[in-house]
Amino acid sequence: MNYNKNSVGREIPEYLEGIGELQPFIGVGKTLVNKSKAGAKIRVGKPGDKKLVSSIKEAIEKSGLKDGMTISFHHHLRNGDYVLNMVLDVIAEMNIKDLTLAPSSLASVHDHIIPYIKSGIITGIQSSGLRGQLGEEISKGILNKPAIIRSHGGRARAIEDGELHIDVAFLAAPSCDEMGNMNGQSGKSACGSLGYAMVDAQFADCVVAITDNLVAYPNIPASINQMYVDYVVEVEEIGDPKGIVSGSIRFNDNPRDLLIAQNAVKAIKASGLYKDGFTFQTGAAGSTLAVAKLLKEDMKKDNIRASMALGGITGYMVNMLEEGLVDGLFDTQSFDLDAVRSIRENEKHFEISASEYANPNSPSPAVNNLDFVLLGALEIDTDFNVNVMTRSDGVINQAVGGHQDTAPGAKMSLILAPLVRSRNPIVLDKVTTVCTPGEAVDVICTDYGIAVNPLRADLIEKFKEAKIELLTIEELKEMAEKQTGVPDTIEFSDDIVAVLEYRDGTIIDTVKKLKN
Amino acid sequence: MNYNKNSVGREIPEYLEGIGELQPFIGVGKTLVNKSKAGAKIRVGKPGDKKLVSSIKEAIEKSGLKDGMTISFHHHLRNGDYVLNMVLDVIAEMNIKDLTLAPSSLASVHDHIIPYIKSGIITGIQSSGLRGQLGEEISKGILNKPAIIRSHGGRARAIEDGELHIDVAFLAAPSCDEMGNMNGQSGKSACGSLGYAMVDAQFADCVVAITDNLVAYPNIPASINQMYVDYVVEVEEIGDPKGIVSGSIRFNDNPRDLLIAQNAVKAIKASGLYKDGFTFQTGAAGSTLAVAKLLKEDMKKDNIRASMALGGITGYMVNMLEEGLVDGLFDTQSFDLDAVRSIRENEKHFEISASEYANPNSPSPAVNNLDFVLLGALEIDTDFNVNVMTRSDGVINQAVGGHQDTAPGAKMSLILAPLVRSRNPIVLDKVTTVCTPGEAVDVICTDYGIAVNPLRADLIEKFKEAKIELLTIEELKEMAEKQTGVPDTIEFSDDIVAVLEYRDGTIIDTVKKLKN
Repeated sequence: MNYNKNSVGREIPEYLEGIGELQPFIGVGKTLVNKSKAGAKIRVGKPGDKKLVSSIKEAIEKSGLKDGMTISFHHHLRNGDYVLNMVLDVIAEMNIKDLTLAPSSLASVHDHIIPYIKSGIITGIQSSGLRGQLGEEISKGILNKPAIIRSHGGRARAIEDGELHIDVAFLAAPSCDEMGNMNGQSGKSACGSLGYAMVDAQFADCVVAITDNLVAYPNIPASINQMYVDYVVEVEEIGDPKGIVSGSIRFNDNPRDLLIAQNAVKAIKASGLYKDGFTFQTGAAGSTLAVAKLLKEDMKKDNIRASMALGGITGYMVNMLEEGLVDGLFDTQSFDLDAVRSIRENEKHFEISASEYANPNSPSPAVNNLDFVLLGALEIDTDFNVNVMTRSDGVINQAVGGHQDTAPGAKMSLILAPLVRSRNPIVLDKVTTVCTPGEAVDVICTDYGIAVNPLRADLIEKFKEAKIELLTIEELKEMAEKQTGVPDTIEFSDDIVAVLEYRDGTIIDTVKKLKN
Repeated sequence: MNYNKNSVGREIPEYLEGIGELQPFIGVGKTLVNKSKAGAKIRVGKPGDKKLVSSIKEAIEKSGLKDGMTISFHHHLRNGDYVLNMVLDVIAEMNIKDLTLAPSSLASVHDHIIPYIKSGIITGIQSSGLRGQLGEEISKGILNKPAIIRSHGGRARAIEDGELHIDVAFLAAPSCDEMGNMNGQSGKSACGSLGYAMVDAQFADCVVAITDNLVAYPNIPASINQMYVDYVVEVEEIGDPKGIVSGSIRFNDNPRDLLIAQNAVKAIKASGLYKDGFTFQTGAAGSTLAVAKLLKEDMKKDNIRASMALGGITGYMVNMLEEGLVDGLFDTQSFDLDAVRSIRENEKHFEISASEYANPNSPSPAVNNLDFVLLGALEIDTDFNVNVMTRSDGVINQAVGGHQDTAPGAKMSLILAPLVRSRNPIVLDKVTTVCTPGEAVDVICTDYGIAVNPLRADLIEKFKEAKIELLTIEELKEMAEKQTGVPDTIEFSDDIVAVLEYRDGTIIDTVKKLKN
């Protein structure tokens, strides 16, 4: 096998069985594109066509699903999702095999499909996340072809540009009419935004809506319009509400998270970007939520309003919208019940597709308008590369999500992480897997201090003016190692079990099978 | 030149200079499609890219517009539109030529561009409507290539399927932010829905927003999202509010229109389709508005509610929505101030794209869900073919609009027209130009009586049960001719000045140059 070293120093094979030729990552914003978007197969419906079918099996039969095809799902039902497992159970019964599974992400509830991988029903997986036992099993090499890991924006790009061609999309619909007009705003399985599903609906050759809440025609608002939907199936339950959205995501007052958050707020306020009309994205993790909470208090004090908040939306952002501290929310994913209520009731809480959120191959995805983004990390290395996918033992465990998309999009990306987690150093020499390249990472905020990427001399200057004490990334690494010792080198085999795409489609890293 | 007779008996040339090979119309729903949709050119924006440019000229320069390209506009500003003329004035100054102009429609305000056709700046036109002096001039043969007339759904199809490839779309935006998030709901030039423009935005290689109402980021709701927009230009005025929307469209109590409307209401009520949950579309013309008014009274009396009303939306439909007589409105075009207010305020008044409205090459455009549609006619012939494009003297004068789309989509299409108009018979032997084929036309309602298409034996049966007196179409024709005499045959030359596409892309008729 011939390898090419990519611009973050990882060896990328020229060709990989099951995937094809690989283009090594050459740097943020460097890949040139000179082609047109793809398009779904044209279907010509007739007046009077009925879309409602009696079972998932009937929908699959009518969809024309065959061995070797690619099927997609969305992950708005998160760990409460029943649909992916239900559909694969039926596919297994029908003895369709050699499928590529291309959901927007996977949760631990999808450990259920491990036997289908082992039996050859699923031979490829393309997803943003691979969690739980499924991640472990894939790390052991059970999947026939290497998995492809993409960010949310990278997936939207791959679909729109024709690199990920979806034959049949199965879309969980919390509210749907018999023509397929659907939204996620109401019903017992309400999940808020259907942002990921919107891209699948537009580009798949066949779209099947699966709902537990068949409502009268016309279902308005239609986040996904009937013109995109081929079949509608009613089932008892598409998910477990407890797993779909948290009751209300709240910061748990963990003192370490608070320390990290205070450092992040200091950095934000000193950046020169904290002013009327600023834009931001926070995640739903402890320390980033704490930033949302602290920032809100400061904004009130300083009489500063944000114009736009983006991303996975939580009650924190909803609260800021309702208090007039932010003018509008763009929502690809609603994390809690407050967010679901808000997207239903508040016009300024606006649903956008994953492509509108983060597709790099468009004139301007919303991530390009971010001033700040607050992100987590499993590992950060001295080149500022971030790993959000594999554990320190090398096992696939998490999700890329919007990390790769927002970090280069935002004027200032902040990585919030403790220096040490479960006796593992978080800042280290080389991350196990590069997910987000260091050149897109600006500020590291830990519980022991802040380090700024030397590429951002402008920020270093600003922070010094604000008398923020800065550490170098090497100092952070040494402080971490002082507590944990130098981590052992993980023993990998040569077999590649997954490739990490950068959002532009080039390969930023690979994940290898563990030895033994 | 070789000709093929199409299924409505018109001779269609096999090949036409300036257009290419022509496929003759072979009947409603007969054209098979086995391909995929087209896609716009991929543009890769960078964070920090500015879209705001200082002038239309700068936007045109940056768009890369060149001789021979295709440009598009939307017609939501109707006869109040300034944008199309402004842009063409600049293009003329810049000496770009041989352009194809492909707006969703044209109004008489666009007579302004006639000199640009004569000077070769515009050599092709593809539009739903060609009115006023422009229509007359095109009938005289001033356009270099034959014009292509398409319905709203046909245009959406042609764009999505790659037959109408738009190089640069210039979109009038009544409200827009500097990233291009736009809607038509507010601003001095508010027009309501931007349904036609949504398709252009998605499929054009370059999108320029032109606004007289630049608002703070983020402009929510974004009917067209920033991810589709390349440049934004601010100008003084994009239109004349008096020409954009009527203050309030109201039925004028013309007794002839009332007679026609009463006949239509009789037919609707006897059809078996008038029951809870029915769906309908009315136009904005006198007699169809009268139907809306009469039907509303009956619905209240009969305690019957509609589920969906579609199309160009007027205050009549808004009023029905607000009184709970219809559950939801799908709006591609808002005709009056009531409709503009409603689409802004009422979630159940829902904006849809022209493709979602009527694209025949999709699993189900909304027109396929119509029970009734009420349509007008310039001429109707004894084969039930309808002309909505050319005057009785053969001159291009009107627009196809959604006529071709809704007639086959609806379970019952009703054509409302007086028997005689300005001493011209409306029902006659052969329409001057076939726009909508007779097989899609079910019921003709005139001020002298009702005729039903013999293909609809089911309706004839129902109407007889309801004791509705029916005339044959031949009887209507004779009654008309008795008043007017047999109309003179129009003298055409052999030169084709326009082709009428059926919504599926085949050619249903051609318009020839007048003799002299």
